[in-house]
Order: sequence, then C-alpha cells, then structure tokens
Amino acid sequence: MMKITNVEAVPLEPVQLPGAIGCAYRVALSTRDGQLSMAMRFFEIAPGGQTPLHQHPYEHELYVTAGTGTVWREGREVALHPGDVLLIPADEKHQFKNTGRGTFGFMCLIPAQFQKC
Amino acid sequence: MMKITNVEAVPLEPVQLPGAIGCAYRVALSTRDGQLSMAMRFFEIAPGGQTPLHQHPYEHELYVTAGTGTVWREGREVALHPGDVLLIPADEKHQFKNTGRGTFGFMCLIPAQFQKC
Repeated sequence: MMKITNVEAVPLEPVQLPGAIGCAYRVALSTRDGQLSMAMRFFEIAPGGQTPLHQHPYEHELYVTAGTGTVWREGREVALHPGDVLLIPADEKHQFKNTGRGTFGFMCLIPAQFQKC
Repeated sequence: MMKITNVEAVPLEPVQLPGAIGCAYRVALSTRDGQLSMAMRFFEIAPGGQTPLHQHPYEHELYVTAGTGTVWREGREVALHPGDVLLIPADEKHQFKNTGRGTFGFMCLIPAQFQKC
C-alpha cells in the first residue's frame, strides 16, 4: 500500500560525509519503504555550512526547496534558489554551500541502491 | 556537465491522460538531459481538476509543493498538503484531486524509461 508521510515527520540526521560542515538530512524514501528507483533525501545546510567537493559513480537529481546557496560546477560557483532543478551526472565533481542567512534546503535523489539506510 | 534550470523555466504542457481534468505538467528532467534513473515532472492541477483513477506497472515518488488535494488510496481519499511525500507502488490504483481554491502542485517521479519525451 502506498506510503504517505510529511518531510517534517522524518528524523533529521547528521550527514556523515568527511568534510561536511553544518549538514543534516532526512531520508524520506528508501528501499526500506519498498521497491523504488531512487532514494529521496532532504538536505538542510546551516548558514556557513557546506558539503565537501566530491564525486561518485552515480547521478544526483536535485530540487531546491529553501534558502540560497551555490553549487560548484567545473570550477565556478553557480547561485541556487528555490525551484531550481539540477541533474549532476555520475563522476562529476560538485559541492554545495549555504550563502544565505537561513537554512539552505534541497531534495537530493540518488539511485536507491546507494542509500545505506 | 550538470544541468541547472528552474522549474518555472520549463514549458507547461497539458497532461494527455484520458480522464485528466485541468491537469498540466512540466518535464524538468528526462532522458533528454542525460543518463538518469527517474524523470522529474511537476504537475499543476487547477481547482476542481483531477487525474483519472488509474494504475501502471511502475512506481511513483511524489512531493507536494503547493495547495491542497487528495489521493485515492484503497478506496479512501487522503488529504495532502505541501511537504507530503508519497511512494505509490507499481500496479496500485491512485487518483489525485484538487480540493482547494488554488493550484494543487506536486513533483512526480517515474522510472526514466517510462517518460515519453
């Protein structure tokens, strides 16, 4: 049967990635919930926070939900705002930074098999 | 290289599904954009509008972005609000209705191979 929840009801957990500063996320949908193609995670980066500049062999699909930030794209910081949609190909370097005064929030999807919970 | 766009910059197209009333959508990410696991589409249902009660052999992942509506789940209408997240398993019947006065909006992801554009 279909699962229905609200993002605010999903526990906020620290992001364990080395180099992550002020980053937490909620795993809203994963293989725990049944058969699905991508895990749906909601990230919250605190003011001054950032993810590490890194890459991995699978794609990201992103949707910015709140605040203002940047993404590193081929050496340049590109500004991001709510409603922005990103496709980051596998193996491409990327990094997110909060450049605003409030929380920088975005949904980040990855192929389900790479979400370890 | 990563694609960055904004949902408002993506053309709004009518939903061609038989039985759909007042439904339009934006295909923000699909196989046109490169290798990816799921197509990201943003639906807008006008006041009084609805999708048909239907099913298909692949899952939906949803995130409600605006307005108020309902989803049909095993014979009952369940209220939906912004921030709600849904996983609709393959082959499960579902239908969305706008029950508010404004646009009812949600992101709906499907496995990329089923998005025909």
